[in-house]
Order: sequence, then structure tokens, then C-alpha cells
Amino acid sequence: MVNTRVAPIIEWLKAENIDFTLITSPTQIFYLTSFNCHPHERFLGLFLFPHTEPLLVCPTLEEDRARQAGWLGEIVACPDGEDPWARIVPALHARRIHMANRIAVEKESLPLSRAEALLHHYPEAKLITAEEALHRSRAQKDATEVETMAAAAQMADEAITIGLSALTEGCTETEIASLIEYEMKKRGADGMAFDTMVLFGEKTGLPHGSPGNRELKAGDMVLFDLGIVHQGYNSDITRTFAYLSCTEEQERIYHTVLTALEAALDLCRPGVRLGELDKVARQVIEDAGYGRYFTHRLGHGLGIEAHEYPSVHGNNDDILQEGMVFTIEPGIYIPDLGGVRIEDDVLITATGYRLLTGYPKEWQVVGK
Amino acid sequence: MVNTRVAPIIEWLKAENIDFTLITSPTQIFYLTSFNCHPHERFLGLFLFPHTEPLLVCPTLEEDRARQAGWLGEIVACPDGEDPWARIVPALHARRIHMANRIAVEKESLPLSRAEALLHHYPEAKLITAEEALHRSRAQKDATEVETMAAAAQMADEAITIGLSALTEGCTETEIASLIEYEMKKRGADGMAFDTMVLFGEKTGLPHGSPGNRELKAGDMVLFDLGIVHQGYNSDITRTFAYLSCTEEQERIYHTVLTALEAALDLCRPGVRLGELDKVARQVIEDAGYGRYFTHRLGHGLGIEAHEYPSVHGNNDDILQEGMVFTIEPGIYIPDLGGVRIEDDVLITATGYRLLTGYPKEWQVVGK
Repeated sequence: MVNTRVAPIIEWLKAENIDFTLITSPTQIFYLTSFNCHPHERFLGLFLFPHTEPLLVCPTLEEDRARQAGWLGEIVACPDGEDPWARIVPALHARRIHMANRIAVEKESLPLSRAEALLHHYPEAKLITAEEALHRSRAQKDATEVETMAAAAQMADEAITIGLSALTEGCTETEIASLIEYEMKKRGADGMAFDTMVLFGEKTGLPHGSPGNRELKAGDMVLFDLGIVHQGYNSDITRTFAYLSCTEEQERIYHTVLTALEAALDLCRPGVRLGELDKVARQVIEDAGYGRYFTHRLGHGLGIEAHEYPSVHGNNDDILQEGMVFTIEPGIYIPDLGGVRIEDDVLITATGYRLLTGYPKEWQVVGK
Repeated sequence: MVNTRVAPIIEWLKAENIDFTLITSPTQIFYLTSFNCHPHERFLGLFLFPHTEPLLVCPTLEEDRARQAGWLGEIVACPDGEDPWARIVPALHARRIHMANRIAVEKESLPLSRAEALLHHYPEAKLITAEEALHRSRAQKDATEVETMAAAAQMADEAITIGLSALTEGCTETEIASLIEYEMKKRGADGMAFDTMVLFGEKTGLPHGSPGNRELKAGDMVLFDLGIVHQGYNSDITRTFAYLSCTEEQERIYHTVLTALEAALDLCRPGVRLGELDKVARQVIEDAGYGRYFTHRLGHGLGIEAHEYPSVHGNNDDILQEGMVFTIEPGIYIPDLGGVRIEDDVLITATGYRLLTGYPKEWQVVGK
């Protein structure tokens, strides 16, 4: 029952003298069991114990899929509308867990109501943060994961090509975004990592803008930010282009962002403090006079989630380790004028880094 | 500052002697402020007070969008990588909230870590469940919301037509699902309520199956389950058909499900206990001998979220009220053989109900 991904967590429970952990985030459960389940408001939980067999709790209507995913251990299946704890507590008691002093949970995602229900049944327990131990084992991707993520990134490159070749004067952001999604799903993408972002002109000045009916015209910046889900893993790429013509300032902003990205990449190797990447990239943009237009962190971890540990911001003291995958995505956004963001997916290797995304980053005026 | 949607919550805070409420679910913030923000792991929160002006906390990079959405009150903008509480606490102190006895939060979604941070700054406080008060005001859709949801449902009807007319022998589930999404986005859908489900043959026996490379052949059941997001509101429809030919048993299962749906609809009017709908529909399916193959609740509330209050399951003692919108979606799923689900979006009116989804529900053998 205990696979290589679960084993380090069991060791941690033993070392920290924790009675059990209740893991509730669907992504972490997928990582540990291969069971990919999005239960909405229904109860999904994986109980791991230091000295006894694990227990999976899932909605009744998902039980067959859990078995198909390869789960061999006990399942507590909970019908809709019933209190799942009425079924969970007897299963815990059968494991002789009648009381608990220390229970590890994912505090960043466990809803307060579920924490209160847990404490109702184990009122003596102190709740311990599970995230650090879970992140530690998950942050360093293994060879299979890297291969899957490289494939997901390659599909993201392909999606940029598709988007670019569909641009015509007067086309709308929405048209291009939905075409990209359609073409990628036809080519076998499991899905998109998030709603595909295609922005034109002044709308590129919104770091989190949404595609709409804005029509493309000469002189517009065009920004694509998209990601592919492939076998449960995410990619995430951003590229920015000029359409038909450009100004000197657009080109200067582009080169500033690209230089910031490259400065951060130059630091990528095991042993470097994560916060340094943000600092060095931000310095480039500040030195060029655009500091106040770079309004977000440099990047975020990537894997089973489109945003996961580690966060790439200036105050993060965590240390880069082989196998980590994250985005580097500096940007400059000038309200009403427009913006540029360039984003790559970066894998830390034994001696440096490898770019998973490969779409060229030279400044391009497209459509000519 | 206090609009008609916020007002009842302020009244509730006064009546319950609550010092303030911290609302953190993006959908509830959208409902109350028109600011539609998905902050991922970043902090987004709306503080409402019984006797002073509200306070919106959002990531720095979303501040402009909050203003564009019409928020006129104070904003605390939090840069990435900084502790948001370092900015929130002074803003609360400026409102003379130096201590609190009762704080209302959304316990079903507030992560434990955020609850702990709140209690760190207000250690005397008891956390009160906000959901009931928030649901109460949001469950009864107003005329504008109904109009938006009717439009979203009409687009869902259209999507079924598109999917049906694209079916050809040998086509795959994924092809049809991505074509539907592409066509609907081209027609102006803001997005899909969830990943479009298109299932063929034995795969219709999985209540939560995903489209894959299964190819369509004669005699297959074809199940579409999809929803459209329109101006922030969701629709959700399921229809099941037979392709080219069918068996008597398929037709019998279909009519059983349709009869169950109609039995529940017959009960829809203000004053009826919600749980009765599930019971009467389930009874129809049980009487036909398929009870063990109906493995989920009858339906769920619909609105800004694809699944929201009220849940339509047998144990729900809440009472139907004018303006409520929810799905009714009985199903029968026979493993390895196949399944049928039929789902409508139902609005409770003053005297009965109105179907928002309108696609016909007669048994159809399609493709001929």
C-alpha cells in the first residue's frame, strides 16, 4: 500500500510523533494516490497513519474511479447528504485511534468547518501544519514528472504558434483564445491550465485582464498567457508581440522585460535563495525606470497545480533544489498604454536549469 | 457605499451583535461588490462592519480592476510576498476595532490558516458561521439575475444542439466537447461552467466521467453535461440520447429518469421542503428497480457558482422560496452498460416553477 510518494510522509509522522494526517487537497491526493478527483463541496480525504494502513474517504459516486486509479486500501464511501464523520469515526476507531494529541492538516486549504468537525471528534488534538512536509516531498519532480511537464510545455509552445498564425486585422481576443483551446484539445490536451488569456493593445496593460471583443489593429501589442494540462500536470507560458508595427518605447519595454527574465535565469541552480531571483529581475526593471509598473511577484511553482509551492517572490528564503519547477514571468504594465510579460517554465537541474518552454523570445513584429 | 445586497448583512451584524464579518469567497465578494476576482493563493477579503464603512482587501495587481468594477470604499492593496495582516490591522484600528468578541466568517471555505491569523490579531473572538446569513440573501435571485441566468440556460440549450449536430460515427468524445466549447465561446459565452462532459456508450455509466478518445458507434448512449458562464452566472444542463439504434432497456431507463425528473418538478413551488424533491424522484427510480444505480443527490443550487446553496438532497429541511434556482438531475448509471441523466435548471416562482433550460426531453434516437 505504501508507495514511494507516501513513504516520506509516514516517516515524518513517526518523527514528529503525529497521530495521523488528514490530507484534503485534491491535488495532493492525486500526487499520493493517482486518484484525480474534484469533489466540489463533497468530502474527499486521505488519512495516513504512522503505524497502520491508510484510509481513503470519497463520495460514493467516486468510489469506482478510486479503484480504477489503483487504490487498493480501505475506502469509506460517503453518500450525498449524510455526515461523512458518521462513517469516518468508526473506521478510525477500528484502527484504535480513539484519541489524538497531534493531527497534521493542510492549514492553507482545509476549511475551518472541516477543522472544527475534526476537533469535535478529537477535542484534545493540536492541529499541526502539514504543508511543509507535503511540499518538501512534492517540490522536487521525479524523472516521470519532468517528462510529463516537458510535454505539457511543448504543447504550450505549440499553442502560441497556433494563436499567432490566427491573428488577422479585426479579429477579437475571444476568437483567438477559443480557437487556441479548441485546437489544443483536438491535439490531445487534457485541458487548459486556466482560461486562455489573449489581450490586444491597451488591454495588455492589465496583468490579469480577460479576453473580450477588443478587435486587433496595427500597432497593438498582443499578449498570450496560457497553459496546457497534460496527464494531470500544468504548463504556463506568456509571450508578447507587436502587430504589424511598433513604437520604440514598446520595443524598449520588451527588452527590459527580457533582460529581467534572463538575469533571473542566470541565477538558477541548486543552492540559490529563491528570493534572489525576484530581486535581480526587479532591479533590472527598476533601473530602466519601470519599477512601479511591475506589480506582481516574479513567478510561482508549477506541477499538479498551475500555482503551487514554491512562490518566487523577494521574501522567500527557500533554497533552489534540483527537480524544482517554477515560472519566471516578469512584466511591465502601463495603464491605458499596454504591457509586456514574458514567462518561461524552468526546471532546476543538478548544475543549473533547463527551460521547459521553448518558444523563441526575440522581439517580433508579427503579421507582416 | 451600502448597496441593497450589502444592507441585509449589515442588519444581521447589528442584530447578532457581531463586531465585523470577513468575507473571503470570491463569488460572495462578486455578489456583494460586482468585483469578480480570482486571487488564487493571494488574500482577497471584504470586511463589513455594523456601524462603519466597509473595507476591501485585494492583491495590489487587482486594485485597478476593483475600482473599475465600481468599488468606491477604502481598499487595502497587498503586494505579493508581504503579510497582508500588516496592512489590514492598521486599517481595522483606524476604524477603532481594537478588539472583537464575535467575528463572522465563511467557515465552509475559509482556510484554517486564515482563521488562525485572524484569531492571532483578535484572540478573544469567537468565530461565527456567516454562510447562513449570506446564503439567505443570495439564494433568492432578483429579476436581473433571473434574466441573466435564463440567457445562460438558453445558451446551454444551444450548446446541446451544436453537440448533437456534430455527432458522426467514429468521432471522439473529446472532439465533440472541444467543438462545443469553441462554438459557444465564439457566440459570446464568457466561459464554460465546468469542463464540458461528452460521454459515449459504456462511459455514460460513470456519473463523473471525462471525455476521452472513445469513438462513437451505433447503439451507443450519448450524454452531454455542460454549462455556460454568462455575465458571471452559470447554467447547467444534461441530456442523453441514443445514437442510430437503441435497446428496449435503454429506453426504459430513459423514461424512468424522465418520470423521476417530472415527479420532482411537480412539487416545485414555494413552501415545499427541499428534501421532498429528492425523495419523490428517488422513489420513482427505486420503484422501477434501479434504486442502487442512482448514486447522487437530486441536484444543487445554481447562480454565481455552478454548485451553490441550496443542496437538493433528501435530508435538506430548507423550504423552497420564490427566486431560488437549482438543478434537478436524476440519473441511473449501470457500470459497464451505460447510464442516463437528464438535468434542468429550475426557478421557483410565486406559484410554481419555471424551467430555464428548454431543450426538449423526449426520448430521441439521433443520427438517422
